[in-house]
Amino acid sequence: MYRYLDRINSPEDIKSMKPEELDGLAKDIRKFLVKSVSKTGGHLASNLGVVELTIALHRVFDSPKDKIVWDVGHQAYVHKIITGRKEKFDTLRQYNGLSGFPKEKESVHDIIDTGHSSTSISTALGLACARDIKGEDGAVIAVIGDGSITGGMAMEALNHLGYIKKDMIVILNDNEMSIDKNVGGMSTYMSGLIRDSRVHKVKGEVDKFLNITNAGNMISKTASKITDSIMYSFVPQECAFFDSLGVKYYGPIDGHNIADLEACLKNASKRKGPTLLHVITKKGKGYRDAEAHPDLYHGVSSFDIRDGVKKTSSDTISAAVGRKLTEMADKDKRITAITAAMPSGTGMNIFGEKYPERYFDVGIAEQHAVSFATGLAKNGMKPYFAVYSSFLQRAYDQIVHDVCITGKNVTFLIDRAGLVGNDGETHHGAFDLSYLNMIPGITVMAPKDTEELMNMMELSSEIDGPSAIRYPRGNAYYLKTGEYGKLEIGKSEIIKKGKDMAIIAIGDMVGNSIEAAEILSEDSIDVEVINARFLKPLDEKMIDYVFEKFDTVVTVENNIVSGGFGNRILQYASEKGIQKRIVNIGLPEVFIHQGSCDILQKVAGISSDKIAEKILSILKKDR
Amino acid sequence: MYRYLDRINSPEDIKSMKPEELDGLAKDIRKFLVKSVSKTGGHLASNLGVVELTIALHRVFDSPKDKIVWDVGHQAYVHKIITGRKEKFDTLRQYNGLSGFPKEKESVHDIIDTGHSSTSISTALGLACARDIKGEDGAVIAVIGDGSITGGMAMEALNHLGYIKKDMIVILNDNEMSIDKNVGGMSTYMSGLIRDSRVHKVKGEVDKFLNITNAGNMISKTASKITDSIMYSFVPQECAFFDSLGVKYYGPIDGHNIADLEACLKNASKRKGPTLLHVITKKGKGYRDAEAHPDLYHGVSSFDIRDGVKKTSSDTISAAVGRKLTEMADKDKRITAITAAMPSGTGMNIFGEKYPERYFDVGIAEQHAVSFATGLAKNGMKPYFAVYSSFLQRAYDQIVHDVCITGKNVTFLIDRAGLVGNDGETHHGAFDLSYLNMIPGITVMAPKDTEELMNMMELSSEIDGPSAIRYPRGNAYYLKTGEYGKLEIGKSEIIKKGKDMAIIAIGDMVGNSIEAAEILSEDSIDVEVINARFLKPLDEKMIDYVFEKFDTVVTVENNIVSGGFGNRILQYASEKGIQKRIVNIGLPEVFIHQGSCDILQKVAGISSDKIAEKILSILKKDR
Repeated sequence: MYRYLDRINSPEDIKSMKPEELDGLAKDIRKFLVKSVSKTGGHLASNLGVVELTIALHRVFDSPKDKIVWDVGHQAYVHKIITGRKEKFDTLRQYNGLSGFPKEKESVHDIIDTGHSSTSISTALGLACARDIKGEDGAVIAVIGDGSITGGMAMEALNHLGYIKKDMIVILNDNEMSIDKNVGGMSTYMSGLIRDSRVHKVKGEVDKFLNITNAGNMISKTASKITDSIMYSFVPQECAFFDSLGVKYYGPIDGHNIADLEACLKNASKRKGPTLLHVITKKGKGYRDAEAHPDLYHGVSSFDIRDGVKKTSSDTISAAVGRKLTEMADKDKRITAITAAMPSGTGMNIFGEKYPERYFDVGIAEQHAVSFATGLAKNGMKPYFAVYSSFLQRAYDQIVHDVCITGKNVTFLIDRAGLVGNDGETHHGAFDLSYLNMIPGITVMAPKDTEELMNMMELSSEIDGPSAIRYPRGNAYYLKTGEYGKLEIGKSEIIKKGKDMAIIAIGDMVGNSIEAAEILSEDSIDVEVINARFLKPLDEKMIDYVFEKFDTVVTVENNIVSGGFGNRILQYASEKGIQKRIVNIGLPEVFIHQGSCDILQKVAGISSDKIAEKILSILKKDR
Repeated sequence: MYRYLDRINSPEDIKSMKPEELDGLAKDIRKFLVKSVSKTGGHLASNLGVVELTIALHRVFDSPKDKIVWDVGHQAYVHKIITGRKEKFDTLRQYNGLSGFPKEKESVHDIIDTGHSSTSISTALGLACARDIKGEDGAVIAVIGDGSITGGMAMEALNHLGYIKKDMIVILNDNEMSIDKNVGGMSTYMSGLIRDSRVHKVKGEVDKFLNITNAGNMISKTASKITDSIMYSFVPQECAFFDSLGVKYYGPIDGHNIADLEACLKNASKRKGPTLLHVITKKGKGYRDAEAHPDLYHGVSSFDIRDGVKKTSSDTISAAVGRKLTEMADKDKRITAITAAMPSGTGMNIFGEKYPERYFDVGIAEQHAVSFATGLAKNGMKPYFAVYSSFLQRAYDQIVHDVCITGKNVTFLIDRAGLVGNDGETHHGAFDLSYLNMIPGITVMAPKDTEELMNMMELSSEIDGPSAIRYPRGNAYYLKTGEYGKLEIGKSEIIKKGKDMAIIAIGDMVGNSIEAAEILSEDSIDVEVINARFLKPLDEKMIDYVFEKFDTVVTVENNIVSGGFGNRILQYASEKGIQKRIVNIGLPEVFIHQGSCDILQKVAGISSDKIAEKILSILKKDR
């Protein structure tokens, strides 16, 4: 079916291909990617962009002896195809299927499990140092995007790498955008570098690099052949940014020319000390619609290849948040919005369109985002930082040190809280209720549905001090039960009265708990369901009432049990000297794999039926 | 008593001084600093280094309309002296006394509370953006050290600043060391910059900058006067690192020449867009012994001015950890040690001296340190990252994402866990038990004393997977009670049998609990005391035994109660359906101020007497 791809089952197969066959292979891989991802969904544009780079890497290097570390890892599909996993692509991102990120358990060629950005240079440097301590050899290569490299820890790693001068290659995969358009002084600088190099083709400089270690031998012959076809050329005098850190820069290199890439990689592999290759690629390369709209094709659901991906849905919770914040900003001039490179993912693009002067996309820089918000708040603004739960982990210290110790007026809009589905372990927002629970002075809320989320956003604008609202990934949903409208800080609501026991649920688990109560009613168990709304401050009056009325109280949250909402109820009861049957339901203490949210909620025991089942078993045991 | 300093009670007073009086004032301030800090203890060397810079800042700018943000903040003593707080210096870092860091509550001139590094540019940029949104004016100045600027988030902030081009000044206070000798590619680069500038004095370039906005006017007259006396000069062609980010670099400037500094600051204040002034200072300047040993004079206890500070104590827990790890490394070639710019603070300098090739000081870069450790571990090493508890918060995501999801063999040696004393809010290690408690798959230990800490280190070398040992700040201490020697994972010990109730304590609270039990015995209450040793995995057998034997169980930890050890016991009891009187004693849910550990333990309710008191009140209530 695929003339060239069918021959590829391991990196060895790719090495034995003739150079003139490689463009055909690249075409095959693109066809395979589009076909496969159009069925399963997944990351498309980034993978279409690195087809030639990945081919060249596996031809020049011997994985896994030579170690390729993919930053973030959503661009490792081609690598997976080449390393013997193409047959499994129909299970991509499904429960028990192929992961959308590198996974050590899947293959020896996947050096490290990843999912978050900017870690690759650090990990690779660790690998290189261990190699040298053991006196082994083998190349270490970090492949990092132009968005990820501006993440602070990548700069920390470059600083260390340039200091200890290990033999290591960093490939800067530059498509001038990460997920949305990339921002930052460095991005502007790098774009200038590329622009300038298009003007001044300094052929001599290219030769100089390509000949460093191989003057007069075969490589250099190949090199002189390819320099004519090179699209971008080396302008080393303009690369002071990396050079000044002690990491030798070479580039820009055409990331879609396999021969050029191979020649450069070969020479880089022979260089002593840290080398950075600046490779220019095009996101979505080879699939016209993806080239035109790489943001739409970053992460996709299944789609029809002929029709292409449709515009981002406006039905998401994130979009509702973006619209609401914009509306609030109409009235409240203090409101400012911050995103860390996720404008459309968080809905903040909507805000940015209307209020560009009060909108800040800071790039992949969650730490900076939080301290920046602190400065805004100190000077009279009311900043909202919209961020995915698992990425906010990056700024944990800044939440404590900058926002909460100083008690600043910063609100965290925590998107993708709880299980997120197919992105798996690294992306679940499993910890935020716990990591916020311990921090003094922050108000923490989670709405039962999207309308209550809007109410909480309104409320947040009145809170003087740090606050956070966490809500799940997905489409807006409306339970249409209980009260809506103006909320009070620390005030919960009774959704349904009951006689036998109570469930106190928080966030999206209110809906599941209502359903669980319905299931239990079939067993003639009459459950009272309470929507907690607040993790902090707790509605102590309500909890006192619950413990007065019931002997069995179950808490439910879409967050790890340890340290979360349920633990807080336990702590409250302990402080009050209440000795009742209290059971915490939430995510178990394991890293939960990928899969649809429906499946994962069952696996984790927080689906309606599993909640009902658990309660039934408790009641039976207690009888 | 002080000829010049006595006249200074506010920034206004300093502005009205004659230029020729300023060196006298600087001398007075140094004398005052040495005298005062020799009595109270505190940060000395860094403050001696910024005397002239701080004077110049307050002469050129109008604080608080112009906002000075001090990175970390331990170098803000001179600022405090100038802004009307010199009379309070005898209370420095004492309970209810003057803070050793900026504190908004102390003065309108303290823009933001700080204590951790690398946040100032972010905060300052937030202030600048808010200023522009409101259409106000006023300068914003971030003062950041050469150690702090390599912290990742500072780079994130520079990247953002260079992109949005706000009018803002970053002062890079470069003393070529942070606390210990500074490391990193950038540090090497900056040192080269300084060295080169000493050789090529490019007077024309200096004039160019000093004249930018004031050709022919008074400032420029002053400027041409000072250029002759300027020690370092501007070599802008070598500053591509910052320039490439979009932040205009000027420097290096002699940081001990007030006239030069004033001229440069005035011109910088008139420049549009982001400006970075590279100021060269000498840590410990003016006190000979501190100049010679700036590391010893970074943070000092009270000392005799004539004798000077004595060499760092070898009696600390940190030093014991350093010696032990070195000893373990003799036998185990996999052991590698990492510190993030705290070699002597963590005792890792001891390791580094013996095994330089297995020792890594990564600079102020906790995030990188953790992912770097992940790479080392993946390639067969057994890395130990020794780090202060409150600084490890910076790497929370990397602990989750890099180490624990992948289950790597990394051990965290968490120093300064629990209350740390006089550094206050930002430095207490109040959260680590909680933020580790929620993370799946990590073994978390805390020893009763320094000998058990050594036992735990031995044990950690056998653990296959992530582990952490947390221990307090201070001198090594030995309880000489219970068992020592080889430990078992998840195995606690009974320190003292009892009949009436049990205390399960963890870490340094075992000692306090033993004392509390003694106090309670005077009331004829016979307390069983258990040393938990492990937060995770819990010794379930022991806990089952405790709940079988006792109706009242008290947990004690030097960590915030929310989400910590006590909560885990509550959760375990809840899972088992145990309904007993369980009380969690630990740090309350507030940010605890500065003061001696003795006072703070009492304030927080974890001193022996307070534990006893609390237990007594519970028992009385329950009766």
